[in-house]
Order: sequence, then C-alpha cells, then structure tokens
Amino acid sequence: MSSTYGTLFKISTFGESHGKAIGVVIDGCPAGITFDEAFIQQDLDRRKPGQSRITTQRKESDTFQVLSGVFEGKTTGTPIGLMIPNEDQRSKDYSHISEQFRPSHADYTYTAKYGVRDYRGGGRSSARETAARVAAGALAKLVLQQLGVSIQAYVSQVGKLKMETPYQQLNLALAEENAVRCPDPEVAEQMFAYIDETRKKGDSIGGVVSCVCTGVPAGWGEPVFDKLHAELGKAMLSINAVKGFEYGSGFAGVEQYGSEHNDEYYTDETGKVRTRTNLSGGIQGGISNGEDIYFRVAFKPVATIMQDQESVDVHGNPAVVSGKGRHDPCVVPRAVPIVEAMAALVLVDFYLLNQARKA
Amino acid sequence: MSSTYGTLFKISTFGESHGKAIGVVIDGCPAGITFDEAFIQQDLDRRKPGQSRITTQRKESDTFQVLSGVFEGKTTGTPIGLMIPNEDQRSKDYSHISEQFRPSHADYTYTAKYGVRDYRGGGRSSARETAARVAAGALAKLVLQQLGVSIQAYVSQVGKLKMETPYQQLNLALAEENAVRCPDPEVAEQMFAYIDETRKKGDSIGGVVSCVCTGVPAGWGEPVFDKLHAELGKAMLSINAVKGFEYGSGFAGVEQYGSEHNDEYYTDETGKVRTRTNLSGGIQGGISNGEDIYFRVAFKPVATIMQDQESVDVHGNPAVVSGKGRHDPCVVPRAVPIVEAMAALVLVDFYLLNQARKA
Amino acid sequence: MSSTYGTLFKISTFGESHGKAIGVVIDGCPAGITFDEAFIQQDLDRRKPGQSRITTQRKESDTFQVLSGVFEGKTTGTPIGLMIPNEDQRSKDYSHISEQFRPSHADYTYTAKYGVRDYRGGGRSSARETAARVAAGALAKLVLQQLGVSIQAYVSQVGKLKMETPYQQLNLALAEENAVRCPDPEVAEQMFAYIDETRKKGDSIGGVVSCVCTGVPAGWGEPVFDKLHAELGKAMLSINAVKGFEYGSGFAGVEQYGSEHNDEYYTDETGKVRTRTNLSGGIQGGISNGEDIYFRVAFKPVATIMQDQESVDVHGNPAVVSGKGRHDPCVVPRAVPIVEAMAALVLVDFYLLNQARKA
Amino acid sequence: MSSTYGTLFKISTFGESHGKAIGVVIDGCPAGITFDEAFIQQDLDRRKPGQSRITTQRKESDTFQVLSGVFEGKTTGTPIGLMIPNEDQRSKDYSHISEQFRPSHADYTYTAKYGVRDYRGGGRSSARETAARVAAGALAKLVLQQLGVSIQAYVSQVGKLKMETPYQQLNLALAEENAVRCPDPEVAEQMFAYIDETRKKGDSIGGVVSCVCTGVPAGWGEPVFDKLHAELGKAMLSINAVKGFEYGSGFAGVEQYGSEHNDEYYTDETGKVRTRTNLSGGIQGGISNGEDIYFRVAFKPVATIMQDQESVDVHGNPAVVSGKGRHDPCVVPRAVPIVEAMAALVLVDFYLLNQARKA
Repeated sequence: MSSTYGTLFKISTFGESHGKAIGVVIDGCPAGITFDEAFIQQDLDRRKPGQSRITTQRKESDTFQVLSGVFEGKTTGTPIGLMIPNEDQRSKDYSHISEQFRPSHADYTYTAKYGVRDYRGGGRSSARETAARVAAGALAKLVLQQLGVSIQAYVSQVGKLKMETPYQQLNLALAEENAVRCPDPEVAEQMFAYIDETRKKGDSIGGVVSCVCTGVPAGWGEPVFDKLHAELGKAMLSINAVKGFEYGSGFAGVEQYGSEHNDEYYTDETGKVRTRTNLSGGIQGGISNGEDIYFRVAFKPVATIMQDQESVDVHGNPAVVSGKGRHDPCVVPRAVPIVEAMAALVLVDFYLLNQARKA
Repeated sequence: MSSTYGTLFKISTFGESHGKAIGVVIDGCPAGITFDEAFIQQDLDRRKPGQSRITTQRKESDTFQVLSGVFEGKTTGTPIGLMIPNEDQRSKDYSHISEQFRPSHADYTYTAKYGVRDYRGGGRSSARETAARVAAGALAKLVLQQLGVSIQAYVSQVGKLKMETPYQQLNLALAEENAVRCPDPEVAEQMFAYIDETRKKGDSIGGVVSCVCTGVPAGWGEPVFDKLHAELGKAMLSINAVKGFEYGSGFAGVEQYGSEHNDEYYTDETGKVRTRTNLSGGIQGGISNGEDIYFRVAFKPVATIMQDQESVDVHGNPAVVSGKGRHDPCVVPRAVPIVEAMAALVLVDFYLLNQARKA
Repeated sequence: MSSTYGTLFKISTFGESHGKAIGVVIDGCPAGITFDEAFIQQDLDRRKPGQSRITTQRKESDTFQVLSGVFEGKTTGTPIGLMIPNEDQRSKDYSHISEQFRPSHADYTYTAKYGVRDYRGGGRSSARETAARVAAGALAKLVLQQLGVSIQAYVSQVGKLKMETPYQQLNLALAEENAVRCPDPEVAEQMFAYIDETRKKGDSIGGVVSCVCTGVPAGWGEPVFDKLHAELGKAMLSINAVKGFEYGSGFAGVEQYGSEHNDEYYTDETGKVRTRTNLSGGIQGGISNGEDIYFRVAFKPVATIMQDQESVDVHGNPAVVSGKGRHDPCVVPRAVPIVEAMAALVLVDFYLLNQARKA
Repeated sequence: MSSTYGTLFKISTFGESHGKAIGVVIDGCPAGITFDEAFIQQDLDRRKPGQSRITTQRKESDTFQVLSGVFEGKTTGTPIGLMIPNEDQRSKDYSHISEQFRPSHADYTYTAKYGVRDYRGGGRSSARETAARVAAGALAKLVLQQLGVSIQAYVSQVGKLKMETPYQQLNLALAEENAVRCPDPEVAEQMFAYIDETRKKGDSIGGVVSCVCTGVPAGWGEPVFDKLHAELGKAMLSINAVKGFEYGSGFAGVEQYGSEHNDEYYTDETGKVRTRTNLSGGIQGGISNGEDIYFRVAFKPVATIMQDQESVDVHGNPAVVSGKGRHDPCVVPRAVPIVEAMAALVLVDFYLLNQARKA
C-alpha cells in the first residue's frame, strides 16, 4: 500500500536489496511522451553505487528494462513497467545479522510490524529501492521539460561543513562535475576529503541536499492538506535517512518579522506578477506563485558503520553488531538525483491535477 | 479533493473564514468511542481567537454542533458531521483588499489557480479552517487515549528567543498555564513580552512548536512512501504558515557521525527492546520503535501586518496594501492544539492501518 | 471512509435518517460554475418524500443550505458544504424495532459490523442518505450541461409490468409528467395502479430504472479497472435496494453471436466516427465512443412492509416484526433522480480525469 | 492510475498483449502468508490459452516469476512483484489492423483518448491483462483460505443454452472436469458442442459465469458507496467483455413482492443468526450477513470474429476488417478463474478493512 506514490502520476515500486529485481510501475503518465531511455539511464547512473571511493563499492550497473507501456518510442498512456535486475547481491554478507537488530536501522521495527523480515541487505528498507524512484522521476522530468520546468539539486552541507552561498550566486551545473555534487568546486574538494576521512575511520556523516525548481507556473499545488510544499516535504521525508525539510526561509524565517519576511509584489516588464524577494520559496498558501521553488533536505549519518556497536538479538539478548557489507560513508552525493526524482514526481502530479481543474 | 486527509480515519473539512460555517466530516472513526463533547470543545477553546491580548480580537465562541454519526453518546462507525457556525464576520473589513493581492498571502495564487476567490478574510486559505482540524483531531485523541497514547505540543521558540531545554527536563503540563503555551514559565513571560511588543509595532513574528507523542507502540507507520515521519511532516507542513519540519535529531543530526548518532538497543527489565538514546525520534525506517516520537515545526511570521506594503492589484497595477482586520502577531500559541490535532490524525490513521495488517 | 465517492470530483456524505441533518461536502468541483440553487432544489424535490400517494408520507421539504464554497453565485474551487436539516423525524415510530432485526434490512449486518447502530429509521442505512447524493449530482449535472452532456432516467418496469419500447422511440421528457416517472403515459397509469394496489396490501414491489446519457464525447473512462461502465455499475449498485446493473445489450447480449452484436463503424457526414448499431451502450474497452450511453438498474422490493414477519431480536430470540413507519411501496419513482445523480457524478469525474490526461 | 485496484490489498497490473511481459505488483498483502507457487500457477493454468479446441490457440505457458516480496517461502508484508513473460507474440498478425478500428473493440476509443495505441493484439485492452489479476487473485485466495472462505465460479449459460439448476443442487467441483467449466456434465457437453459449432462458423457467442462465495462471516463490506456488492459489481464489470452483473435475486427479484422477497431471520442450533431464504445473496445494506454470497456475470460475444466486417480506418475512410489472429469463440470457460480472482481481491480487501475497524 505504502509503496505507491502519487494521485494521477502514480508509481508503485517493488523489490528488495538482495531479491531478484527491483522495479516500478508508473500508471498515469500522459501518452505521447518521447521515452528517452538514455536520459533515464543517466539519472540511474548518477544514483548507482560505485561511482567513486566515497560511495559504496557494491557493483550494480542499474541497467533498466522496459516491460510495458512504451510503443514505437513513445508512452501510450498505459502503465509503464520498469525493472532493474539485482546483480551483485552478496547475501552471505548479511547472514551474521539475520538474528541481530542493527542500531538505527529498520531491522527491529520491520520485525515488530511484520513478524518476519528479509534481512539481506536491509531487504525492502534498503535505499536500493530509491533506484526505482529515480527511474520514475526521470520520466517525470521528461514530462516537465516539455513545460519548461527544470529541477536541480546539489549538496550544500556535509557534516559541519556548510556552503552558505545562495543558489542564485552558484552555477548549479558545476555540481555534476565532482563526486560530491557540490557546485562550489573548492568546497566540493573539502567535502570529499571530509567524507573520505570519515570513511577511513569506518564511520559515517550526515549532510544536506538543496534543490531548486525553476519554470513552475503560478497555480500548481492544492489548498489545505495537499499543499505543494506539504507534498514536497512528505516526498523528501520518505527518502531513507532524511530527518528534516524546510522550504523558502525555513527554520531561519522563524526569527524574522513579518515586515522583513513578506514578499512584496510588482508587475514586471512583461506584465507578469512577480515578487521582489522570495522568502516564500515560490509557494504561497500551498500553491506556486511562479517564482523559483527551493528547499533543503537534511540527511542523518547512515546507520551502517564499520565499528562494533551494542545491540540485542531477536531473542532480546545482548549482541554486538560488527559492521560488514558495503556502504556509503555519506549518503548525500548519491541522494541528489533521488531528491530531484521525488521533486519531479510531486510537480508532475500537481501539473496533472491542475490540468483537471481547467474545466 | 485536497481538503480530505487520511486513509482510514478520513476527514473532509469545508468552510471559509467569512462564510456561513466551517466544519468537517470524519469518515472511518471506529464505532463505540465515547464522544466526549467537552473534551473536543476544550481543544477548540485552546485554538479559538481572543484568548489574550497577543491573539486576534475576532470574537468566535467556536462552539461546534454534531450533525451525525453519534448515537446515545457513542460513535456509530458512520460519518461524523461537525459544524462550527461563523459568528463574527466583519466582511466589510476586507472590501479594501477585494482587488488587491496581500504580500505573502494566498490571494494571488488562489486567483492564478481558480480565476475567482472569496477575498473575505482570506476565504478558504484562512487559518480559520484549522478549527475543523482541531475538532477532528480531538476525536482522534480520544481514540488514542484508549490505547495509552498521548500527544503534547508546546511553544519552544518565538523569533530569536529559544527555549533550549530538552523536553525530558520540562513539565509539559505547564504549557497550558500561560498565554504563550511555553512550559518554562520564565521564558513564557519573555515570549509574551516579545510578542506584545511586536503587536504594538503592528508587526508579526515567527516561532517554533515542538511536540512529543508518548505511548506509541512499535510497529506503527508504513515503509517506503508513507513513512510515519513523512506523514507527520506532510501533516505539519499543511498547517498555515509552516516553513519547516524536523524530527528526532533533525537538521542538527546532519553534523553528527554515525557512531554518535546511532541509538543502541538494549532489553529493559520488563523484556522490552529499548534504545539507550533517541536521536531517531522514535521512528526507524518510517515505523515507530516504541520510544517517544518528537518533532519541531517552524512557523513564519504571519503575513498580515498593520503596516503599509507595496503590492499590485488584480489588474497588475501598483497598489499599497494597508493592514486592517484582526490578526495574530504570532501564530504559535494558537498553533499548539493544531499541531497536536494533526499529529493525532496521523497516528490514529497508522494505528488503524496497522490493525488491518494483523491478518 | 466508504461515505466518500469520486477521485477528482469527490463527495463525502453524512447523516442519519433521524439525526439532526444530512449533507454532503463536495471537494474538487471546478471553479466558476454558476451555482443554480433552484436547479439543485428541483432535483431534491423530485426525490423528496410525499410527492404522491404511492410514496412515503414522511414530510420533508428537503430544503438545502449552502455552508461554503460558493461566492457571489459561483463555485470557488473550494469544498462546497451542503446541509439538509431533518424535519419530520418520528423516532418513536422506531422504538419497537430498537431490539429487533427487520428482515432484509441492514439492522443485523450493521450490528454485526459495528456493535452499535442508530436504529431510528435505519440510521445511516436509510435511503434518506441519497438526498445528499442528489444535491451533489445536481451540481455535477450543471458542470456537464456546459459540455453538452445530459442525463435522463425513467422507470421502465414495475414488478412484472415491463415497458419494452426502446428509448429512442420514447419522449423521455414525458417521464416527469406522471408520479411513476414512466415516459409512456399509458404504461405509467398501469404502473401507478400496480403500485397503489401493492400499497393497499401493505406490501412492496420491485422495479427497473433505465437511464440514457447523451452528448458524452469519445474518450471518457479509464482502461482496466476503472472502466466507465464499471464505475457506473458500482455507483448504481451503491444505491439502496439495487440488485443488478447492465449496460448496452446487457444480459440479453449473452445470447447473441459476435456477428450480430458487433457495432460496425462508419464516418458520418460531419466526419465523425460513428457506429451503425449501439449494442455496446456507448462504451468500448471501458471508454466512451461518442454514442449514447444507456443502462438499466434493478431495484428489489423495499424491505419494509406493513405485514408481520418472523425474525429474531438482538439476543437471538424469536421475534415478530410488525410493519410501522412510513415507507414507499415501490422505490423506483423516487429512484429516478438518484440514478441520474450517480451517473452525473461518475461522468463528471471521468471528464476531469480526462482533462488531466491532455498533457 | 486505473490499472490499480484495491484499498488495502492493492494491485497494480501492467503489460500489453504483445509487449515483453505482463505482471502485477501486490502491495498490502499481510506478512507471513505461505506463498504457494503451485496453487498460483494452477489458477494461471486454468486461464491460459490453448486449453482445448474451444479456446484460442495462442501458446503461452503463463509461467510466472516472483521478483520481490517473498522470503523463505513466506510473504514479508512488502510489495510482491510478479511477472509473466510473453512468449508467443505474433505481432505481424496485427499489422493489417494497425490503421483500422475493429468493430466493438477498444481500438477506436483508445485512439480517441490517447492519440496513440499499441495495436498489437489489442495492446493493453487485451484480456491477456487478466492473467496478472488471476495471479494476484490466487494469492488473495490463499489469504482467504486461512479464514475459511472459498470461492467457486462456473459457467451457467452459453448463448441461449442456460443451466437453470440452483447452485445448491450442483456439485460445483465438477466444473473443473470439463473444458467448458459447467458443473452439469450433460449441459457441459451441449455447451461444448455449441461453442465448437460457433467456432467453425468463424463466429463468437456470449455466456454467463456464476459465482458462489462461502464462509464469509457477517460484517464484511462497507456502507453507502463501497457496499460489498457494489465493489463486486465494479470488479466484475472491469473484466473484458462483461455487460451485466446481478447478485442474489438480481433482475428477477424486481418482479417479486416484498413479502416474498424478504429473508426472515432465525437462530440456528449453534446460536448463529441465519436467514431462512437467501434472496439477499448474503449481503444486506452492503455488508455480508454470513450466508453464501452469489452473483452472475454476463459476458458478450467476443468482438473478434473470423468474418469480414465493415469499419473505418484511422483516417475515417471505409475499411473492411478481416478476422485474423487467434481468439476464443466464447470467453466464459477461461473467464471462470478471472471472476474468482476478482471476487477474491474484493473480499480480501474488505476483510482487511474490517480488521482496521476493530478498534
């Protein structure tokens, strides 16, 4: 049930870290969209493991197969089934934790909920599931591209190392030119060193992914419960390891007076209503106002570390969990395309909902 | 569409600030719950305007009427219709803005989306809608009480004034003993002065509401997209003026190493699996682990201020918006029961979903 | 939960037969629709009790109140709350059955499901709930009218008395000129006598309502599970006392060969693709083809009769249920606007969904 | 969107007749169910083509693969991905209709809706999609078996040839012993001859599938819109070629008086409340009453016939469609497991919803 996302552009993901395959069924994609396989694969490549020495060394090509919904290179309006076979499952790496609960993992809570769990690599709770989201999100991006909407995420913080430069002063395209995905090359190098050092200690560290969506016209988003930023928040918080979300002025906006925080309107030379500032983050009353939408997503340090930790086993007895397996010391570089994918899924759904409103 | 919330405990709210009434239909409340009208009214009273001089002076008793779904003092399992008549609409206070877009309000975005808007008091975008949520949330609390779950929110920050004391060291019951709803009486006084001063300047200021949920057993929440904290995040971000959400360690957790951040397990004297720390905020992999759930919600300064602001009118011409009407200089004291209500709605829904899983 | 209907034009009904009021919240109605109160009231009047001596003598004016969502005579895109106060509850008429299960009523099944029930007049299971549907459906009709879609239902059978004339040879407008709502005045008279005779015997009788929808363009409806006729079927079967649904050739089509049953295509003088016959009932593969949509709905005899019947009480002891209260001897004349309302709700929802598809 | 079915036991099907594969993702299956692959394959075998000379000669083994959600032979509560590769696609059989609209097929309506269509074998509109439903439905049956619920469908009519014997007087197990799936061996032979003769004429013929569900306890189903029989109706009408649905007394019940039609209650020797007759079909007020649930489903003659038919092409020009490809002369024998599957999906969903209600 909870593996389904979206109202009109609806995705259903499936698959465990060490099962036969992961995948997604996308139901509700408009017909006639050119299905650009290379574009989708490129986003999967941005997420896949093994990109550099600061990401997990699991080897997955993450090559996807199209099972349905595409005919003669175009979407047909019917469900698009995509599958990514799992290639490099070292399930025996996990036999040692088949009876242990890894601290701050989902092992205990899944067991408490379901009575059983697929312990191999975290099973369904593994972030490997997000590959399916990235594939679906890339298709959503293709729909949005036709509408002039683009989405660009990047790493703005690793541990205590923050890049404070506002996004307007950055060349976001540079983010893809380094392994950390930070658009400031100098900070990127420091971040790389920070993560690499953490990796050598067998530890992990958190980070922040920032995201900017441009070209969204005024009117997307729904009032009351399904506000645009509320859905963005849910979508981001549904990504593994996320602990917080803020948009526009965010938590810092709390400290401002209304007279400082309000975004005054003006009419620009083209006759378009604009705001002089954008502390609103492009959203007012849950509905886009035509300005850039931007937000920040906080990721905790990943739970798996290469150190011994105290825990209990499934019988409630004390146990020591030793770090094995292959894991990321810092999740944010690979999280960048995931954040973008979820943003694309949110936006395309609100676009379709808004189309329906044009009665 | 977007005025409906919940999967199994489903609420549909309706009503504008200056219409005939606001209300809610609650579909899916279990049968046989004692419908404690006084309890529900009490939560409405905590949210209603006019509680002190630091809240809006609009006079609404917010007395609710039961239209359906309750028989002989108990819920029957059928939809519960609740209605709160609007009593003190001074719609003419708003005629001056019928053709203007108030900065950082939803005036412009509603117009962009729908072509029309009920400009009286913000219409549907008014926070008055949240009274309906509070009524529904109070009923959700009654269901949760039977299960030993309780929810307590409080104000932890007003503008730059932060109360840093961890919740475990506070007597949260004290929050209800002052107008600000801060459980530290000394800080509460400072906050009151801060807000009152802001009010006198005709300005507004932001704040943070913190919330703690105790007694939630392990196993609530769903994996992948409908994680417990993702739904909490969406629910909170759907409240008017909210700009950010974080749970457990939140944004601060970013700066920690995994070896610091992980919550180690142990078995307590009763045989229950517990964690020694709780940076996870009671949730792992989107599912509750039996520890306290806690989170923070950032509210921006409310947009209506008693000062002139530059803007445009519906024809795109420059306009000066003058502050009139009756508004809160700081929204957080009245937001406390709203945060609790939304948390209750999230939790009761996951409880019911979890019941369904017990096949 | 189950009192909510629709995906984009979503209605939530509430209310018991003998509670304070019944009503509906309509979420997702497009903005800018002229809210024609007289039109809506007219449909309610067609459904209301006491229209003639062959309907129940309960006196309800069924006058509705608008609580929200309408501003300056037009819909605003926000939830429309409508309420119909109950006026003539003779709840004491029902005290005798507070502990009995009336045969073929929902008394027993509600008790089995919920443990409690509001026994007054059937509570939520009463067909009085359909007044809320009729109000919402009338609004849906107003949306459809703008698109050139019209819906006309009529009575085509009462007990064994069938009107076999195909709808194309009838003047359907005549249906509203008699108490039975049969468009053949002669048959209508016979039906009236049939029902009246049944009434005098203290008995009840079944009937069939037929319905024709004209002006639906090709392309409405969704493939696979949400086929247009599948939703129509669900919508009709959700009306109290309905036992069957068929569209196009229906059960009779079973006996035909494909060579007889297939509707051959041709291009008409305007260049529009048409079918020469219409055994498909205007729907192929679950999607409208531009021809008339027509279907038939079977209603059983209403369960309440003015005769003694054997039953059991809530303790499982034998009991004799004596018919009291005020009831319809035949439900179909008043069911005509309900069938139309549900058809309108189905069609408007598919219209909006189809709008969303136009990406 | 419309390829998703169910509220708590939710399935998403995908795949075209001549694409790479068809399949289904099942989200919400309870954890801990023994995943009996042989049982599921057996139901797929009952639906697969080529079973006898009266079914299509397309050769598909319909062997399914498990992609996820099953661990050590049990369901884990996570999404179960099942895939059935397409083996015998003779897509060139369809090149002749790539520009033609086959009468009473979905060719024209899909084109009208989506602008494009996968014309190979009907693409998504092909009944091949139902294999995915049968696989999911078989899993639903496994859940229901644990609760003592069983579902048995059978063929009760082919063309004008009706088997009128009430199901209580039949040995339904005999249905699986002949190619027609009629439990009366003598009638089955006549039906076989009827269908075979139709096949030889290059024509097709309709039929009726009846279905009986036993062991459903009182209390399943939801009031108002999601009545048990309304969902059954929708589920059945969503099957390709279905034109009508009736349950209990159905259309025939229309002709009865209430005094004849009402099912009187009594308490049986075990203390269980029962009804003496069962014209209600096991459902009252949309909720099961503990008696057998039974219903009938009308299937039209399949549209593809081996005869020339007049039609138009995609340009609106006259065209003659000649029957090619491999098709069933009568769909009902293979529809039996599909009807059962949909019934199982409806029932398991209501079971889970009812579990949630037990607050």
